[in-house]
Amino acid sequence: MGKANKVVLAYSGGVDTSVCIPYLKEEYGVEHVIAFAADLGQGDELDEIKKKAISAGASQSLIGNLVKPFIEDFAFPAIRSNALYQGRYPLSTALARPLIAKKLVEIARELNADGVAHGCTGKGNDQVRFDVTIGALAPDLQLLTPAREWGMSREETIAYGEKYGIVPPVSKKNPYSIDLNLLGRSIEAGPLEDPFQMPSEEVFGITSSIADSPNEPEIADILFENGYPVAINGEEMEPVSLIKKANSLAGKHGFGRLDIIEDRVVGIKSREIYETPGLLLLIKAHQEIESLTLPADLLDTKSRLERQWADLVYKGFWFSPLKEALDGFINYSQKQVNGTVRVRLFKGNVDVIGRKSKENSLYISDMSTYGSEDKFNHKSAEGFIYVWGLPSRIWSWINK
Amino acid sequence: MGKANKVVLAYSGGVDTSVCIPYLKEEYGVEHVIAFAADLGQGDELDEIKKKAISAGASQSLIGNLVKPFIEDFAFPAIRSNALYQGRYPLSTALARPLIAKKLVEIARELNADGVAHGCTGKGNDQVRFDVTIGALAPDLQLLTPAREWGMSREETIAYGEKYGIVPPVSKKNPYSIDLNLLGRSIEAGPLEDPFQMPSEEVFGITSSIADSPNEPEIADILFENGYPVAINGEEMEPVSLIKKANSLAGKHGFGRLDIIEDRVVGIKSREIYETPGLLLLIKAHQEIESLTLPADLLDTKSRLERQWADLVYKGFWFSPLKEALDGFINYSQKQVNGTVRVRLFKGNVDVIGRKSKENSLYISDMSTYGSEDKFNHKSAEGFIYVWGLPSRIWSWINK
Amino acid sequence: MGKANKVVLAYSGGVDTSVCIPYLKEEYGVEHVIAFAADLGQGDELDEIKKKAISAGASQSLIGNLVKPFIEDFAFPAIRSNALYQGRYPLSTALARPLIAKKLVEIARELNADGVAHGCTGKGNDQVRFDVTIGALAPDLQLLTPAREWGMSREETIAYGEKYGIVPPVSKKNPYSIDLNLLGRSIEAGPLEDPFQMPSEEVFGITSSIADSPNEPEIADILFENGYPVAINGEEMEPVSLIKKANSLAGKHGFGRLDIIEDRVVGIKSREIYETPGLLLLIKAHQEIESLTLPADLLDTKSRLERQWADLVYKGFWFSPLKEALDGFINYSQKQVNGTVRVRLFKGNVDVIGRKSKENSLYISDMSTYGSEDKFNHKSAEGFIYVWGLPSRIWSWINK
Amino acid sequence: MGKANKVVLAYSGGVDTSVCIPYLKEEYGVEHVIAFAADLGQGDELDEIKKKAISAGASQSLIGNLVKPFIEDFAFPAIRSNALYQGRYPLSTALARPLIAKKLVEIARELNADGVAHGCTGKGNDQVRFDVTIGALAPDLQLLTPAREWGMSREETIAYGEKYGIVPPVSKKNPYSIDLNLLGRSIEAGPLEDPFQMPSEEVFGITSSIADSPNEPEIADILFENGYPVAINGEEMEPVSLIKKANSLAGKHGFGRLDIIEDRVVGIKSREIYETPGLLLLIKAHQEIESLTLPADLLDTKSRLERQWADLVYKGFWFSPLKEALDGFINYSQKQVNGTVRVRLFKGNVDVIGRKSKENSLYISDMSTYGSEDKFNHKSAEGFIYVWGLPSRIWSWINK
Repeated sequence: MGKANKVVLAYSGGVDTSVCIPYLKEEYGVEHVIAFAADLGQGDELDEIKKKAISAGASQSLIGNLVKPFIEDFAFPAIRSNALYQGRYPLSTALARPLIAKKLVEIARELNADGVAHGCTGKGNDQVRFDVTIGALAPDLQLLTPAREWGMSREETIAYGEKYGIVPPVSKKNPYSIDLNLLGRSIEAGPLEDPFQMPSEEVFGITSSIADSPNEPEIADILFENGYPVAINGEEMEPVSLIKKANSLAGKHGFGRLDIIEDRVVGIKSREIYETPGLLLLIKAHQEIESLTLPADLLDTKSRLERQWADLVYKGFWFSPLKEALDGFINYSQKQVNGTVRVRLFKGNVDVIGRKSKENSLYISDMSTYGSEDKFNHKSAEGFIYVWGLPSRIWSWINK
Repeated sequence: MGKANKVVLAYSGGVDTSVCIPYLKEEYGVEHVIAFAADLGQGDELDEIKKKAISAGASQSLIGNLVKPFIEDFAFPAIRSNALYQGRYPLSTALARPLIAKKLVEIARELNADGVAHGCTGKGNDQVRFDVTIGALAPDLQLLTPAREWGMSREETIAYGEKYGIVPPVSKKNPYSIDLNLLGRSIEAGPLEDPFQMPSEEVFGITSSIADSPNEPEIADILFENGYPVAINGEEMEPVSLIKKANSLAGKHGFGRLDIIEDRVVGIKSREIYETPGLLLLIKAHQEIESLTLPADLLDTKSRLERQWADLVYKGFWFSPLKEALDGFINYSQKQVNGTVRVRLFKGNVDVIGRKSKENSLYISDMSTYGSEDKFNHKSAEGFIYVWGLPSRIWSWINK
Repeated sequence: MGKANKVVLAYSGGVDTSVCIPYLKEEYGVEHVIAFAADLGQGDELDEIKKKAISAGASQSLIGNLVKPFIEDFAFPAIRSNALYQGRYPLSTALARPLIAKKLVEIARELNADGVAHGCTGKGNDQVRFDVTIGALAPDLQLLTPAREWGMSREETIAYGEKYGIVPPVSKKNPYSIDLNLLGRSIEAGPLEDPFQMPSEEVFGITSSIADSPNEPEIADILFENGYPVAINGEEMEPVSLIKKANSLAGKHGFGRLDIIEDRVVGIKSREIYETPGLLLLIKAHQEIESLTLPADLLDTKSRLERQWADLVYKGFWFSPLKEALDGFINYSQKQVNGTVRVRLFKGNVDVIGRKSKENSLYISDMSTYGSEDKFNHKSAEGFIYVWGLPSRIWSWINK
Repeated sequence: MGKANKVVLAYSGGVDTSVCIPYLKEEYGVEHVIAFAADLGQGDELDEIKKKAISAGASQSLIGNLVKPFIEDFAFPAIRSNALYQGRYPLSTALARPLIAKKLVEIARELNADGVAHGCTGKGNDQVRFDVTIGALAPDLQLLTPAREWGMSREETIAYGEKYGIVPPVSKKNPYSIDLNLLGRSIEAGPLEDPFQMPSEEVFGITSSIADSPNEPEIADILFENGYPVAINGEEMEPVSLIKKANSLAGKHGFGRLDIIEDRVVGIKSREIYETPGLLLLIKAHQEIESLTLPADLLDTKSRLERQWADLVYKGFWFSPLKEALDGFINYSQKQVNGTVRVRLFKGNVDVIGRKSKENSLYISDMSTYGSEDKFNHKSAEGFIYVWGLPSRIWSWINK
């Protein structure tokens, strides 16, 4: 890989990214490593992390609070897109990567760095998302990926770090690999690698088990404007607060756990556990308000493009012309997506029990009723079906 | 509409189809009305129904047990297709219609009838499914649809019937319109026509409420062969028994209720309540075993075609060349779909907690692990991502 | 159908729409018929037509020059969408219908009319396009469609007209049904109804036969900006002039004839002959400049959405939320579609022989060359293919 | 890369694959190199090539006539699939690769070789197709790709070869890179790398220029059975003869040249010239007979799946579960694709001028005619359009 003199490193405070600091300097000849740690609502002690980077040899250690853009610019468009990779995973981790990569590039530009770096390994999705995003935003910057290249085992990594004063984690190693941000938690590895083995309760952190969830249901009303959730139970909230509220509501009632076999970008299947209570709740409610306010043909085409949107974001193409064009479709589709969805949260379930839209509901009970106030022109049905089934009848006349 | 001398009528025993009998004779000049009532596992007293038709003036009254073909030839292909109309409704009612229509045509051929008839009204989906199927199977047969044309109110219909000795239902009219078969119940109309009004518990018949469901979870293993479910908890079962078992398992734990806004074929939105516990359970398990045994690109394309399959069936095109070609795709895709899915049923939830496939699992823990036994060629990642992101980088070089 | 007092009629000057005038008054009780004839570049004597309407009994006779909006607001978006119904027909007639319908509604609003009317018959596409567009723009207006309902044969129609002083066409009836506007000609019926019968040369009006086309090729350069054609051979032109120039260039060289089996909206196949020289030329050139300036994934998705766009427009949904959302996609995709396409017109062929884009070409000869100046990182190929083919290899390991 | 003792090499007789022989032995430690040259109808002197391999050091030199399986098992399915990559390129070269790869694997199995090798470089498509196919068929075999790894310039390659007695080509180097088989020629590189530069006439080998093509048109009738072409001008022919006949017919009249910007698998755009006269002619005729014999919805879905089929084949996935499932769709769709297409070949044009299908034509002139023998139920149109446009009207009522 290339050479760089001054490099901005995506820094988490963990052993791997800490070891990257001396490694970049010693093995890659980087003179200045600037560590950047992002606050995405994961609740880390960022001051601690800041200090760690310096003690590992970073020239500069920066912290950025990205929670607001994370929710407003990444999570909220995902809600409008009902984004579920393979129909299931709401991209809680995937959405964070292009934002961090963008920030790395911005800092590199500001500080006149000639490279950026991350500590991802070589078989996950995050390396792809980082590399592709950085390439899309700054194809001229050197991209250094020591952890993908060094080939050290965990023990060797720790030993390498100790030479440079990097203190290994005291606690017995957690068998799980966990990623956390305000949208949720991703858990993999360890005993989960047997896909027939049920995850033990210890892997979950932000959702109740069904057994421990309240014995009484709770009703919540979610208000959407232009496809964005804007209020819960009548209380208008900024996006960040709204996500927090949705997380706590859904998490309390045991909703939002996923246990799936997922196809990674690099062509392998992995078993993933996710907890994304608020995001899943909001997507479900958004789908519902769309079912009331958008016509069937638009819903159908949008469902296909949503899947593609999620696929692109999962695979690293947040910043790409196709993703932008899909955003064009979605933006044009959300003006009428206004109204309230009423859900009942109970024992791991979010059940939609009502939906209304004062100005944009396409449901007209006078049309659908079988009662006497019926406005539908029944006679039309005959003509409609004559034409609707005509190709089938012609096919049959000819071919049977 | 056309004229016919001898007509096979789809008969349910209800007021509408009963009134069709004298109406066809008096107003359409039909000489012989042959009533046909299908047993689809709905639990009706079919002997009663048989007699009713005769007393309403039918020349002949036939009963057909269609449960086995209904499940084997219609429900089981739908499971392989993960068929969910608009991503939600598993077609429990829709799947029955082409089977009944096919049977009407067969009887008409056998008895040398020159027409078939049904008692559907003019704004539902079933009229479309009946008419299109009959046209596809027998474009030469006259199709008579008195209830779509007579324009009588319910009171007028009852009064008309009374003239011919058709006894109106004793009980106070149920405000709901209900369709029932072995796959589930469809409930609409009455208070449900306000889509912000929660359905009251009385509308449900085959699923527990969450509150009333057992306080202990239950584990079940579902075995698939070639994409078909063949055993539950180690016990091999014929399709009909298996569906019954799945219904009772899921229904007991409060799983399988739907409350949705649905787009009907005739262009209007309606609010529908469904209970389809077993079918939804089996589709969910089938999706899971596919996620383990099919590669990502096939899953992705299949998901699009599944939606189209469900759309076609919902809209009346079970017997159509496009549906057949889609079946071609699906048939070719299911040979490797073998294995066991373990689910936990609890309080309205069916959670997949394990999946395995001895011979066809594409999950290889040595590939996906981050541990030391890792078989994935990490070095390849760099080359892969170089190429994977190349179009994005070129785009950026040129356009930024 | 409904009743109206004052009706705006889409008027062409032909026998059918002329007879509509007295028919609307006599049989539908319309008091005022306002005839509206649109100039779409078809070259009719519009003053003649204007008078004819009055003499047939119209209260008012209006003429509207719609050429500019036709090309700018309908044809040009179709070029950006590479719109070809069923991959072949560039919608030359279909694009005119929503514009005329929109104008009818505007006039009705202006003159306080309570209805609009057209003279289309009951099995073509145009009735669908008119009705659906009018319903989408003005669901409250009465829509009267006498020619679809009157059930008169051609002779009866002429006889009916003669009673009201409508002079039948002098000439022996042309066996063909022809529609003409600035985008092209549609020809059907008569001897063309045998799809194995070659169209005789007489049906063509604006394109040379190959035999009669010049024996020397002609080169033309077409410049695109943001996906719109803006200049031919270096000469910047307004859209209307540009279409005329494209028509004359392509038509002279015998390019732009179609002879196809097409599926009409109403479910039947028809045999259609089209001449659309300029539009087809510009779409072909536009596809080419896109192939140079847009990445593969965007081209692929756009190709699917283009087909859907054309399908919607063909079927009457120009003004619909799905069409608008597709426009959103297309609008977002065209900013970089800039550059020049060089074509050679010769003997019925338009062959692209060169394409360039100074600022947006994604073709980089240093990347694609096999020569020594090669910039592509060859080593990456190995890693790329390792990952690219990994799912296939896993499938094979497991299943073979 | 891996090690192998006995390797089957895809051999063409050119410098690159010749140099592979000593290179594999010297640099990769291969003991036995078995050269395999495929006859795909390219017209090479295969006996010459056979000797060359031995003199370059091969232990064994094999020749296989693959023309029949190439056409029957690869080209003919591509015709049924109307396979055009990016809507344009009929895969003439791409279709050969999986066949050669399959043959290499078969020979390796037969001769107990432990490896296979090819001489493709690192930025083309063929390396991808070879590697992916070999991996799919024989994931256990070592795959050696010296030319992708050796990093020698052309001069160095020649020099290396001369050390082992490999005689460089006498003639001045052709600036073009050419691939040839019975389906056509692919030409790239040299002056063609400027995409605004028209290809000079010298690059073409099997098609006339328009100027040189006959001044009289020629009519040809192509008969299809089950979607396969089986006769031309009434003469039944085996697939290989039929392709040859189609090539000569179309080539003579200057039809079948392509000049396109194409997106390679490895993410770069290249400029490609193709001559595939017969294949393009047959695909065009096949599309036409489908337009007569298949209903619109099937045509529409098939068109999307065809594009995907072509994409998969282009990208190396001939042997893959998704490709097989798509074949399932296509196989089910072709039973009724029977009939004759009449084309006129003239001055670079293939114009369809007639199509008929005695048993399967879905075109019924009584349905589509506007004449008096009209069988279409006109009255139905009104009801059809009422329902067809209902969602638009509801949308408008609510949202305007």
